[in-house]
Amino acid sequence: MPPAISSASFFIGKGGGDLISFGSGQPDLPPPQRIFEAQRRFKTFRYGPVQGEEKLRAALAKEYPGARAEEFVVTNGASEALDLLLRAAATRSGKVLLPKPYYYSYPHNVRLAGMTPKYYRLRDGKIDFDEFEAQAKGCRVALINSPGNPTGSVQDIAVLKKIEAFARRTGTILISDEIYKDLIYERENYPMKGETVCTINSFSKTYAMCGLRVGYVHTKDADLVAKMVEIKSHTSMNTNVLAQEMAYEALQTPKRHIEQQMKVLRSRRNYLYESMVGLGLDLWKPEGAFYVFPKFKDPTRAMHDLFYRYHMITYNGTWFGDPSRLRFSYALDLAKIAKGMERLEAFLNKEYRRYT
Amino acid sequence: MPPAISSASFFIGKGGGDLISFGSGQPDLPPPQRIFEAQRRFKTFRYGPVQGEEKLRAALAKEYPGARAEEFVVTNGASEALDLLLRAAATRSGKVLLPKPYYYSYPHNVRLAGMTPKYYRLRDGKIDFDEFEAQAKGCRVALINSPGNPTGSVQDIAVLKKIEAFARRTGTILISDEIYKDLIYERENYPMKGETVCTINSFSKTYAMCGLRVGYVHTKDADLVAKMVEIKSHTSMNTNVLAQEMAYEALQTPKRHIEQQMKVLRSRRNYLYESMVGLGLDLWKPEGAFYVFPKFKDPTRAMHDLFYRYHMITYNGTWFGDPSRLRFSYALDLAKIAKGMERLEAFLNKEYRRYT
Repeated sequence: MPPAISSASFFIGKGGGDLISFGSGQPDLPPPQRIFEAQRRFKTFRYGPVQGEEKLRAALAKEYPGARAEEFVVTNGASEALDLLLRAAATRSGKVLLPKPYYYSYPHNVRLAGMTPKYYRLRDGKIDFDEFEAQAKGCRVALINSPGNPTGSVQDIAVLKKIEAFARRTGTILISDEIYKDLIYERENYPMKGETVCTINSFSKTYAMCGLRVGYVHTKDADLVAKMVEIKSHTSMNTNVLAQEMAYEALQTPKRHIEQQMKVLRSRRNYLYESMVGLGLDLWKPEGAFYVFPKFKDPTRAMHDLFYRYHMITYNGTWFGDPSRLRFSYALDLAKIAKGMERLEAFLNKEYRRYT
Repeated sequence: MPPAISSASFFIGKGGGDLISFGSGQPDLPPPQRIFEAQRRFKTFRYGPVQGEEKLRAALAKEYPGARAEEFVVTNGASEALDLLLRAAATRSGKVLLPKPYYYSYPHNVRLAGMTPKYYRLRDGKIDFDEFEAQAKGCRVALINSPGNPTGSVQDIAVLKKIEAFARRTGTILISDEIYKDLIYERENYPMKGETVCTINSFSKTYAMCGLRVGYVHTKDADLVAKMVEIKSHTSMNTNVLAQEMAYEALQTPKRHIEQQMKVLRSRRNYLYESMVGLGLDLWKPEGAFYVFPKFKDPTRAMHDLFYRYHMITYNGTWFGDPSRLRFSYALDLAKIAKGMERLEAFLNKEYRRYT
């Protein structure tokens, strides 16, 4: 966990009630009401199937064209999905290709599975296919994250199709982390397809259920499914059965709930992006998730000054493999974003010029 | 998962309504009523601390003399507790000492953490300290499981104290799996103590909350705690926050709930043990948990005949590292146990004599 989190709780504990957090990747909008009904109703706390409740997996299968219930494994959030997948796919001294910048857990997950991370550089958040292909040589697994964290970038469909073809040609296991798939501003999600594709998803971001920890893997690779279930039967058994029932209910939520949420997020994104451009910062306009990733001179120092003098939490790009930027989450309301931008302007006008 | 489970659900699916299961390690008695109130009340599904809710850890600390909240890590059941602990303690080609017979996941957990299992033989379910000490040479970690699964044995306090002294002398990390600590018929639990002791526990068995997956580790070793939290922040993040609230409420249950439960379990144990002795089977009288572990000629064949001809599920000792026995769980009501014993008698009188 980035160190700012513990400092922040310390700060808040000291009465710093006007702290504005652009830090957390946690949705601030409420979950759909119907999951509370499922919560009240459910009364059976016996062990469930390690792979996940049949009912939930059947409902998930309807969301993926051509998918079947037995191709899903329900997990303790996307984190366990990735951990299980890498442990199941692990070979001694295997290499795993990751984007850079990356979600900060990825390299840890790869090492915890006994493998070695390798990286392909994103160009302003976008995949350069030639770079991807060159770096993927000798990798057993390659990971795609679109929409991306910390970049907010959504990859072009043409590029994603080239990567699918590459995986087909080489047999590379392709992990597609699509946990922000429902939070795209410019188009529908393009779900990665193929015999070696393993899609990771989660109920945390779309339905604001982070603390309940329900995620899943979908893959056509029956051997990988069997291995994941075998490992999970020893390392955590079934995912919480009550949370699975609530996740099932979340899936029944009318699409307008998500559309409503996207309207709010889009207006925040536009406001934040335009404010930052107005302040002269160098950043791209993100097409998904809820992050912007502007450049700063000496980001570590900027992060500290923003925190201690302007009471704003931001996350250091270094934690995500990019030491030239800071990540701002916009999972907070417009009024706070606006106040934060006033503080950022004051910082840029006062302290920031003095940076060498 | 033992193969009988899938066969059993197949069987039940075929209308085999009179199947009697001595298989599952799942309590059949209801959870304490107050956890349902916590379930209704709790409404905040945000990420929680990876180490576990402060409130729950503080309540747990009161149950362990001299313990502090920061010495606990709350996990997805005892399974994740063991997985995290072994990953945190892992060294390249480290050896981990396990009892034999063992809970069937143990050797898998050791290998999944990149280490190698070694075994000390139990004598009729009991630890022989000389054997333990001899086998523990060169092991980084040793595991004790009292009350034990599949043995139902509770280890003598004198022996447990010798093992504590051994751990102090050698610095061996001692994992004490005490998930059946509240289910002892003969005395109070003796909690293992020491600087290198890591106690694993769970809400599953005492409070019949298996499917909610809440367990924990307690240890004085601050480095191990920090490593476990670091690993968990990448592999599953916080344990389900709603289930933690319910676990907190379960801890407030008056002791008479557990005493009532123990009364029921004790009468089942006595009935089952005496029936089996009456049928001429060779077994010891278990002092804890809810298993008996009698000897059979050709247990695999006996298990299959009991299943297909007498509609009874039992678990093969081979899955637990003892190919001479079958495990019978008594997490089912007395009437069913009695009916099961009639069938067992018929089996012993008819088929069983024909075994070579």
